[in-house]
Amino acid sequence: MVKTKKAGVLGATGSVGQRFILLLSEHPEFELSVLGASSRSAGKKYVDACDWKQTDVLPEAAGQTVVKECTPENFAECDVVFSGLDADYAGDIEKAFVDAGLVVISNAKNYRREPTVPLVVPTANSEHLDCFSERVVAARKAGKKQGYQICNSNCSTAGLVIPLKALVDAFGPIDKVIVTTMQAVSGAGFSPGVPSMDVLDNLIPYISGEEDKMEWETKKILGHVSADGATFENIPDSELKVSATCNRVAVIDGHTECVAFSFKSDKKPSVDEVKKVLNDYVSEPQKLGCPSAPKKAIHLLEQPDRPQPRLDRNRDNGYAASVGRVREDAVLDFKFTVLSHNTVIGAAGSGILIAETLLKKNLI
Amino acid sequence: MVKTKKAGVLGATGSVGQRFILLLSEHPEFELSVLGASSRSAGKKYVDACDWKQTDVLPEAAGQTVVKECTPENFAECDVVFSGLDADYAGDIEKAFVDAGLVVISNAKNYRREPTVPLVVPTANSEHLDCFSERVVAARKAGKKQGYQICNSNCSTAGLVIPLKALVDAFGPIDKVIVTTMQAVSGAGFSPGVPSMDVLDNLIPYISGEEDKMEWETKKILGHVSADGATFENIPDSELKVSATCNRVAVIDGHTECVAFSFKSDKKPSVDEVKKVLNDYVSEPQKLGCPSAPKKAIHLLEQPDRPQPRLDRNRDNGYAASVGRVREDAVLDFKFTVLSHNTVIGAAGSGILIAETLLKKNLI
Amino acid sequence: MVKTKKAGVLGATGSVGQRFILLLSEHPEFELSVLGASSRSAGKKYVDACDWKQTDVLPEAAGQTVVKECTPENFAECDVVFSGLDADYAGDIEKAFVDAGLVVISNAKNYRREPTVPLVVPTANSEHLDCFSERVVAARKAGKKQGYQICNSNCSTAGLVIPLKALVDAFGPIDKVIVTTMQAVSGAGFSPGVPSMDVLDNLIPYISGEEDKMEWETKKILGHVSADGATFENIPDSELKVSATCNRVAVIDGHTECVAFSFKSDKKPSVDEVKKVLNDYVSEPQKLGCPSAPKKAIHLLEQPDRPQPRLDRNRDNGYAASVGRVREDAVLDFKFTVLSHNTVIGAAGSGILIAETLLKKNLI
Amino acid sequence: MVKTKKAGVLGATGSVGQRFILLLSEHPEFELSVLGASSRSAGKKYVDACDWKQTDVLPEAAGQTVVKECTPENFAECDVVFSGLDADYAGDIEKAFVDAGLVVISNAKNYRREPTVPLVVPTANSEHLDCFSERVVAARKAGKKQGYQICNSNCSTAGLVIPLKALVDAFGPIDKVIVTTMQAVSGAGFSPGVPSMDVLDNLIPYISGEEDKMEWETKKILGHVSADGATFENIPDSELKVSATCNRVAVIDGHTECVAFSFKSDKKPSVDEVKKVLNDYVSEPQKLGCPSAPKKAIHLLEQPDRPQPRLDRNRDNGYAASVGRVREDAVLDFKFTVLSHNTVIGAAGSGILIAETLLKKNLI
Repeated sequence: MVKTKKAGVLGATGSVGQRFILLLSEHPEFELSVLGASSRSAGKKYVDACDWKQTDVLPEAAGQTVVKECTPENFAECDVVFSGLDADYAGDIEKAFVDAGLVVISNAKNYRREPTVPLVVPTANSEHLDCFSERVVAARKAGKKQGYQICNSNCSTAGLVIPLKALVDAFGPIDKVIVTTMQAVSGAGFSPGVPSMDVLDNLIPYISGEEDKMEWETKKILGHVSADGATFENIPDSELKVSATCNRVAVIDGHTECVAFSFKSDKKPSVDEVKKVLNDYVSEPQKLGCPSAPKKAIHLLEQPDRPQPRLDRNRDNGYAASVGRVREDAVLDFKFTVLSHNTVIGAAGSGILIAETLLKKNLI
Repeated sequence: MVKTKKAGVLGATGSVGQRFILLLSEHPEFELSVLGASSRSAGKKYVDACDWKQTDVLPEAAGQTVVKECTPENFAECDVVFSGLDADYAGDIEKAFVDAGLVVISNAKNYRREPTVPLVVPTANSEHLDCFSERVVAARKAGKKQGYQICNSNCSTAGLVIPLKALVDAFGPIDKVIVTTMQAVSGAGFSPGVPSMDVLDNLIPYISGEEDKMEWETKKILGHVSADGATFENIPDSELKVSATCNRVAVIDGHTECVAFSFKSDKKPSVDEVKKVLNDYVSEPQKLGCPSAPKKAIHLLEQPDRPQPRLDRNRDNGYAASVGRVREDAVLDFKFTVLSHNTVIGAAGSGILIAETLLKKNLI
Repeated sequence: MVKTKKAGVLGATGSVGQRFILLLSEHPEFELSVLGASSRSAGKKYVDACDWKQTDVLPEAAGQTVVKECTPENFAECDVVFSGLDADYAGDIEKAFVDAGLVVISNAKNYRREPTVPLVVPTANSEHLDCFSERVVAARKAGKKQGYQICNSNCSTAGLVIPLKALVDAFGPIDKVIVTTMQAVSGAGFSPGVPSMDVLDNLIPYISGEEDKMEWETKKILGHVSADGATFENIPDSELKVSATCNRVAVIDGHTECVAFSFKSDKKPSVDEVKKVLNDYVSEPQKLGCPSAPKKAIHLLEQPDRPQPRLDRNRDNGYAASVGRVREDAVLDFKFTVLSHNTVIGAAGSGILIAETLLKKNLI
Repeated sequence: MVKTKKAGVLGATGSVGQRFILLLSEHPEFELSVLGASSRSAGKKYVDACDWKQTDVLPEAAGQTVVKECTPENFAECDVVFSGLDADYAGDIEKAFVDAGLVVISNAKNYRREPTVPLVVPTANSEHLDCFSERVVAARKAGKKQGYQICNSNCSTAGLVIPLKALVDAFGPIDKVIVTTMQAVSGAGFSPGVPSMDVLDNLIPYISGEEDKMEWETKKILGHVSADGATFENIPDSELKVSATCNRVAVIDGHTECVAFSFKSDKKPSVDEVKKVLNDYVSEPQKLGCPSAPKKAIHLLEQPDRPQPRLDRNRDNGYAASVGRVREDAVLDFKFTVLSHNTVIGAAGSGILIAETLLKKNLI
């Protein structure tokens, strides 16, 4: 195991940052090199700066690393920088990093809607990463570093678009989607995150901003790169209608989403054909041999009472989506239930797999 | 408070039976007269026969009542009989009771699909009870007792049809409904009911038989009585398509349902018109002055994060449905989230309110 | 129902304040007269100033009341003032109120350890309230208002001292107590209160400051008034050793406490004698006929798996403690499990019952 | 990795059996060879016979194994047999296996109290396994197989005795223990296990038979082997008093136990000495180099709010106990809170580690 690339983490003490550290500490290709956090934490050992809340023990080496401020200079050696910054800080800091020639993969929402920034769920639309190829090649020829920004999607979007992408690839455009989510509390972080009074013997039928994110992001991820590779175009509202209803439930990890949808074409596949396409789907990171790529991007479950968050969220270490209950819908064409791990393929893990894909594509 | 009518309870030791006992013990009109259970319990005091699991203390008088076997002879004095029997037993016993001239209001599923049996959510379609008027009048003239059977709906159907009925009354037929439920564990009873391993840090994306019940029952409840009043006709599938997805979540009481729907007519109301109709809806049991009728059959909630099961399920003692998040839908016309108390308006309470309505209609 | 006394609430928008409002809105003797909160809320209608989080609907009249700042002038008309203030504010405000001749019953911890302030769990040591009798009589003769301060105990102390007091009254001093608690999340309020990540599939084996409070408060509540009635003396550590371990668990309301204890005397009662004393215990508020006094201060439960928080916390509207599993202990003399409602007899309800007792004692 | 020994599993389809299969499927020394279950399952592939409920996916090879009936003949090739049988079946079947010369390590309670059967928590009293040395040596010389039976402890006993054993080894006898547990639901299996109504917004202050097991087993595990190595003698009640109170709480895995205790000797160690001994404790399986032995048998945690089940139960893959909150006790000498994984070191994992220890001791 030779770690060939240096990685930095912005917002290292937060909940997403902690996940990045866990995933990078045992990573075969990326060396955890710089940990950045607020000036309040800078200068302290990570173990002292951080209220570690993961179920895995804090890796010793990471714990002993001294936290730095989030300036491009401090991260100059990094081949890739993962950002778990809060949206309040991500805007300025990430821009400064990209301007300084760094590659930033961000979990923050700030730049997701920028037409020049790819919004990537790696097992769904990693081909969007190719938009940087020409620029990187040109910069390398010129002996320069090409900074660029990539965003991973909102956690609830990830689980939705993976099966949709598989189906669109096989059967052509989907033009109607109605999705109702039951989302885990870990998506809201832990200080304070979701209050216990909200989810004990209760659920919250609303997550601020979430429905709009799911509806918008789905149209970008399933959308197209412009001819010159420079900008991304959402599928227009007239061609794809997405209706999302988002709920918070008493689950630690794993978003469950009940999805009904219709294909644009009048020529409908059968339920068995839909299932086969989901089961056979192979994403680009799998083909490229990315070390974190799931064995199967989609696990098709046939038991009637699956997927379940506690039993299925860790399939392929949380990088797979699990789809069950595939059946015809009385109103739209089909429906299914999809589960994805919101802190892995829905957040930090997505960032890692994007970086691995960039490496295989020779973009870092 | 003069209790003018005698009531019996079948399946008195079960979870639904226990709720009937609580509701009847303090009822202003019905006197809890006979408690029936299996031969294993018969002959014992109720307090000894029953594993009482309610949050309210077992009423003293009910506890001291000696349990009887479920024969029509034992219930001959009853003006109305509430059945909380398991489906395994309800079929034969309820039929025998009706044949013996008793009025049976059942929570069991056995006769819900009988064309001659009204399926009633009292704040939605209590007018279906009128089908018995002529027969009761004729029998009374002849000095006989007219037995008949009524079923209350499945718990998850109740919350759905109340707002739908209000909207159909105001704006004409609804032809498409997609509903995703998050259902409480109390709906499954308590011995053993839902295992804790299923809902701690987890949810179950499936409830056996539940989706079909919701889809079918909705079409009967919103359907029509035949011209001669003798049979009920579902709205045909061609005119109303209902798609239900049912999930079990870690909530004790209160089913939450996310609903999207379309009106048949091209002339659509506005969101504000939809809200006003829901808010202003007055059901027949309210108009009749039934003692358990809710002050409002539908509570329209405007806060974005409501209804919540723990905070809203007990509105009007659980006889009201709470509707929130009313808004336009990207795929169908509108969507909202409805909460109803599954063991009150969704089960035993529905039975009580049906009986009160029968009494006001002079049918018992 | 003639409401003869005017009541004010300090900290009305907080979780304890909300409970005071619910309890006072339907109170037969106290009229909810003034609502006080921070300057941020002052001037607004209560319904607009408050994020209402109770399972009962906000009473209409209270919702329309305009919130005032917490100054003695604003509460001058009040016969009694209930304080749900945070400890950060309670110290100064409550002192100013008492100095202005007002009677303050506080849920805050600030003055609990003042030797001149009675610390009262009303069904345990309401006789401590008599310390004010002479002063009140003298002040009335002089045509003045006598201000004074009373504190209710910490929520976890209340459940412990009620059965201990019953036993001490019957069998003489208890000299050793080991108690382990499993406490509900509502004790920590709701914004943010206990994070959901702390209690979903988890518990927290520590509550800051709680163990010390339980150990100390128990010795004051079971302690004595000085001869001149002016000061309270704890039972000395040499005569009563209390060891508390406090845990937070995934329960909404109701603290469960596993208690082992020994009597000082070598003459030990039998288990049946202990049970009988607990079952027969009648507290002073019951004897005085206080409207909120429980029918039984202690419910002795004989089923082996009781008390349970969800099933037993609301006995006598939450004013009773439930004791079960009374048995001999292998190390100390006896052990039992006690459950009490932390927001009723453990907080706001205790304040109300103290006020009712004061009224019956002619002290307000 | 050469798997040198063949292992069988009795009761393979149950919850404990499923854990054995997971632990054995990746085991470096034991080859999962025979799966036994009831005649209802015999003849089927394991994947078809079993309702797999683990968070890890069923290993492919195990899933394809054909289940056999639980007869000694079917397990003749096994060097060691792990039993996850229900107590209803374990008695007869395990005896038949031992009589046939097989080594049985059982999770069932049936033989735990047999004086000739060692009751072993491997990181506490693995030296009890030496009782079989002479017999095994003699049998091997005679060319025979020596069957024998070992029991692992009840899940709640394991967490208690590990730190107690460390302390007794260092400071001499402990004579008083008061322990209150908060136990996970997985200890009760999953069909149906603990009903969800019991632990949602609730806890159960009682587990049938559990307190007696903890009190009795502790005295055997801390007890002595007879001079001839043939029988085990409990510490007499007069020398060790153990008081246990057992509660079930809403946690999936991990039993938390609040323990107060006293040493017999008047010469008391300091808190720091107690902590040091716990932290420095090395168990025999660690010294022997058993592959599943934890790096540390006891993790001493210094943060005030640890151990927590969700965050700490998986330390050293669940084979370690975590001890926190070590402090002086007001009534007894000291108190602490210990957490142990009830399905690993408290059940199946304990069996595996016992087998590894037997192998290192050349007893299988």
